Amino acid sequence: MSGLPDHASEADDRRLPIDRVGIKDLRYPIQVLDRSGGMQHTVASVSLYVGLPAHFKGTHMSRFVEVLNQVRGEVTFRNMPDILGEVQQRLDADDAFLELRFPYFMEKKAPVSGVASLMEYTGWFYGRRTGERDELTLGVAVPVKTLCPCSKAVSDYGAHNQRSIVKVELRSTGFVWMEDVIEAVEACASSPLYALLKRSDEKWVTEHAYDNPKFVEDLVRDVVIAVRDLPGEVSWVRVRAENQESIHNHAAYGEITWRRD
Amino acid sequence: MSGLPDHASEADDRRLPIDRVGIKDLRYPIQVLDRSGGMQHTVASVSLYVGLPAHFKGTHMSRFVEVLNQVRGEVTFRNMPDILGEVQQRLDADDAFLELRFPYFMEKKAPVSGVASLMEYTGWFYGRRTGERDELTLGVAVPVKTLCPCSKAVSDYGAHNQRSIVKVELRSTGFVWMEDVIEAVEACASSPLYALLKRSDEKWVTEHAYDNPKFVEDLVRDVVIAVRDLPGEVSWVRVRAENQESIHNHAAYGEITWRRD
Amino acid sequence: MSGLPDHASEADDRRLPIDRVGIKDLRYPIQVLDRSGGMQHTVASVSLYVGLPAHFKGTHMSRFVEVLNQVRGEVTFRNMPDILGEVQQRLDADDAFLELRFPYFMEKKAPVSGVASLMEYTGWFYGRRTGERDELTLGVAVPVKTLCPCSKAVSDYGAHNQRSIVKVELRSTGFVWMEDVIEAVEACASSPLYALLKRSDEKWVTEHAYDNPKFVEDLVRDVVIAVRDLPGEVSWVRVRAENQESIHNHAAYGEITWRRD
Amino acid sequence: MSGLPDHASEADDRRLPIDRVGIKDLRYPIQVLDRSGGMQHTVASVSLYVGLPAHFKGTHMSRFVEVLNQVRGEVTFRNMPDILGEVQQRLDADDAFLELRFPYFMEKKAPVSGVASLMEYTGWFYGRRTGERDELTLGVAVPVKTLCPCSKAVSDYGAHNQRSIVKVELRSTGFVWMEDVIEAVEACASSPLYALLKRSDEKWVTEHAYDNPKFVEDLVRDVVIAVRDLPGEVSWVRVRAENQESIHNHAAYGEITWRRD
Repeated sequence: MSGLPDHASEADDRRLPIDRVGIKDLRYPIQVLDRSGGMQHTVASVSLYVGLPAHFKGTHMSRFVEVLNQVRGEVTFRNMPDILGEVQQRLDADDAFLELRFPYFMEKKAPVSGVASLMEYTGWFYGRRTGERDELTLGVAVPVKTLCPCSKAVSDYGAHNQRSIVKVELRSTGFVWMEDVIEAVEACASSPLYALLKRSDEKWVTEHAYDNPKFVEDLVRDVVIAVRDLPGEVSWVRVRAENQESIHNHAAYGEITWRRD
Repeated sequence: MSGLPDHASEADDRRLPIDRVGIKDLRYPIQVLDRSGGMQHTVASVSLYVGLPAHFKGTHMSRFVEVLNQVRGEVTFRNMPDILGEVQQRLDADDAFLELRFPYFMEKKAPVSGVASLMEYTGWFYGRRTGERDELTLGVAVPVKTLCPCSKAVSDYGAHNQRSIVKVELRSTGFVWMEDVIEAVEACASSPLYALLKRSDEKWVTEHAYDNPKFVEDLVRDVVIAVRDLPGEVSWVRVRAENQESIHNHAAYGEITWRRD
Repeated sequence: MSGLPDHASEADDRRLPIDRVGIKDLRYPIQVLDRSGGMQHTVASVSLYVGLPAHFKGTHMSRFVEVLNQVRGEVTFRNMPDILGEVQQRLDADDAFLELRFPYFMEKKAPVSGVASLMEYTGWFYGRRTGERDELTLGVAVPVKTLCPCSKAVSDYGAHNQRSIVKVELRSTGFVWMEDVIEAVEACASSPLYALLKRSDEKWVTEHAYDNPKFVEDLVRDVVIAVRDLPGEVSWVRVRAENQESIHNHAAYGEITWRRD
Repeated sequence: MSGLPDHASEADDRRLPIDRVGIKDLRYPIQVLDRSGGMQHTVASVSLYVGLPAHFKGTHMSRFVEVLNQVRGEVTFRNMPDILGEVQQRLDADDAFLELRFPYFMEKKAPVSGVASLMEYTGWFYGRRTGERDELTLGVAVPVKTLCPCSKAVSDYGAHNQRSIVKVELRSTGFVWMEDVIEAVEACASSPLYALLKRSDEKWVTEHAYDNPKFVEDLVRDVVIAVRDLPGEVSWVRVRAENQESIHNHAAYGEITWRRD
């Protein structure tokens, strides 16, 4: 191979650095640390990028996959700085980026019968390392149930309610469990969702939601308040919620970005 | 061009006819006939195929696009046989297929205030012409609201409800308006959806849905019964309904295929 | 719970059996049998349905999830008949359906350097049990590279080529490994894909594809021929291939369904 | 309606302003100004938001749809400030947002035969009005063909090439035609795409791409350089390109954000 031309290493005179260049949406089986004690097997979409200075023509795409192969099966929120450092070194870059997105499961017990089932969430880790400085972002999408306060107030009986998707992203000084974020979000909704409910549970969920109506405005505010107080010294939170309205074919949407002063 | 080689016209000895070969998901602006009197501009995903006998090596992909260009802007359910005939002729095929999928809008008035707004549906036309025989299928996806009878029955107050997608496909002797199918489906649900509702309308939708609870089983049965009796001599109906449950993160699903004896 | 009403068990007088009713797209972590000897952890979308006779008003949705929980972590192509039998029994149904769709990984060695990497495929199992009779379908989507014979023939140099997705579904008397299907498909393409290629490998893939041009028509025919001869007594094959053309924004498509006489 | 409760107008004491709240992904038929002289009919996904001060409990979702209904059929890049002003006024907000995304067609002539066909692009308009100040962003996604310089250099014949999606977003002092952006992007690629090519055109596209190999790094740099010099005084450009590699199942990705000093 050594005799083959290597265009990517040539010089470039267009005077434009590239903010991010690399591989996007490589699918990869990973294990994620689980609050219940073990590692959870899942499948991630992985993107790895570097910043490319103006004077380099190109990067070396195959090296990104090599870094991923080195850490095979052990990508967690905790070793992201090591992976980013390895990317910096192998690609000779000052700026390295890692993005991971994956399905994540939690066992939940139904509220009355106590029957257990698995609920799926979507988790993501974004990491950026610039020189020696890391910025790590933890994300999770939590589907919940919201019941409309306006509909309840104006109607003699009933109230429209729907599935909502709440996306939370946070940065923190300490470690924050994805499970803690999920539980905080579910406590802010009209009701959590479950994969398995018996009729006694369905009664509880229905009445609990009716007793806890929430606008999308309430949801994003309450989630910011709940998440910023989680253990782990949260310093930055972004919450985006989308109610898949059961009376419309479009969504109601709310978004807050909060920073600790 | 005449001097360039034409591999597709060569003979083939693998003894395997190809059921369908052609172009898939070409995006194209079209006009669809509207019950309110005019033509509706929309954008379609178009697929055009032919059956290829065993002794031909290939088809001529560019001719499919040429046929589409000839009828530019005038693809309707009524001229599908002509387009299919043109495909048969230009591609020297016995079997021709056309598939169109597009967003379609209807103006609806809110139930109490009467304010008008546009609701979006997805329509599709499937056509197959074999020799002189046509088989045309009309499809439409209608989002509606369903309220769970079980949740209403077991709960002291409230009932979970959600957006459901009902997909109807039908074949008929006469002409059937997509708008008639949409209205038939909406009348079978707990409530139609609207793009614009004032508070008085929201009260009506909420109470109307509570008064008309429907399982996914009820929905698919009632839709078959309503659609098979529409004007146009319906001979075949397939109904698939998917309730995007507001208490689960999965869907409840029902499906019926009905044929007139 | 015993005191709560159970509408689903009531009688129905609409005289319409429901072909399939149940839960759709429940996400679930599963393990799939791997040809290399172990079990592969992955995440599936699961649908479970039954046929509902005309005289029953509804089915019991929560029982589907209970069946899935019983076999937790052990859903394979081989125990599908057992799961389907359990669904029949728990839901008192003659007709039961199971659909599973999941990402699946194979380790592949690059053609010259021999460096190993993981390639992702999509696998699916469809099972139907009617009375004592099972019909099981194995499916896999294989991304490959195709190079256009026409472009090669008419051009003085170069030839356009692209990623193609080949979807194979088969039924068989004996057991067929998904890995065998994948390798059969890749051998029919202009070249397989790899997650990791060094420059020497890239040279091989480029020249190998140029030496093996394939129309979408060739691809679907060759895949039928290769797959029907795999160990396991294949009795039925459907192949659908979609070339994501690098000269158009639409796809070229081919489809063959073959049955052993 | 006047007698019905209006929770959204109540006061809030959580001390959290909401950055954006409103309706998301409402589908709506619109007309877009076309460089060739007329208006182009298309179908948009529309989102409309306002910023909500901390002391308000909620916004009025139905008013967003009312604003849209007022301007029905006449949403263009040029009247976005008027629509945003109307949203500010009707919702009593300082900060208003409008997002539109839609398919957009251009007629293109094949490079040798001159046959005309329609190519589809995706366009989007983002607008934000804060007080009297507007920030408008024009976006367009252009599919093109890229041929790999490394593959060409290391191989004795052939070179892998693929479809790439280039997303350009820009802000400018003057008016910029979407068509000008599209043509600038296509000129930077190894070759444009076409819906219809005869064999003589296919020869041209194949050889032209082989003569103009481009890394994803080249593509994003060249597009920034071409777009910032378009008529209309471009002040800010973001380019993101994704090569759907024909040798891998993942993408190569590059991204540059440029600002005029």
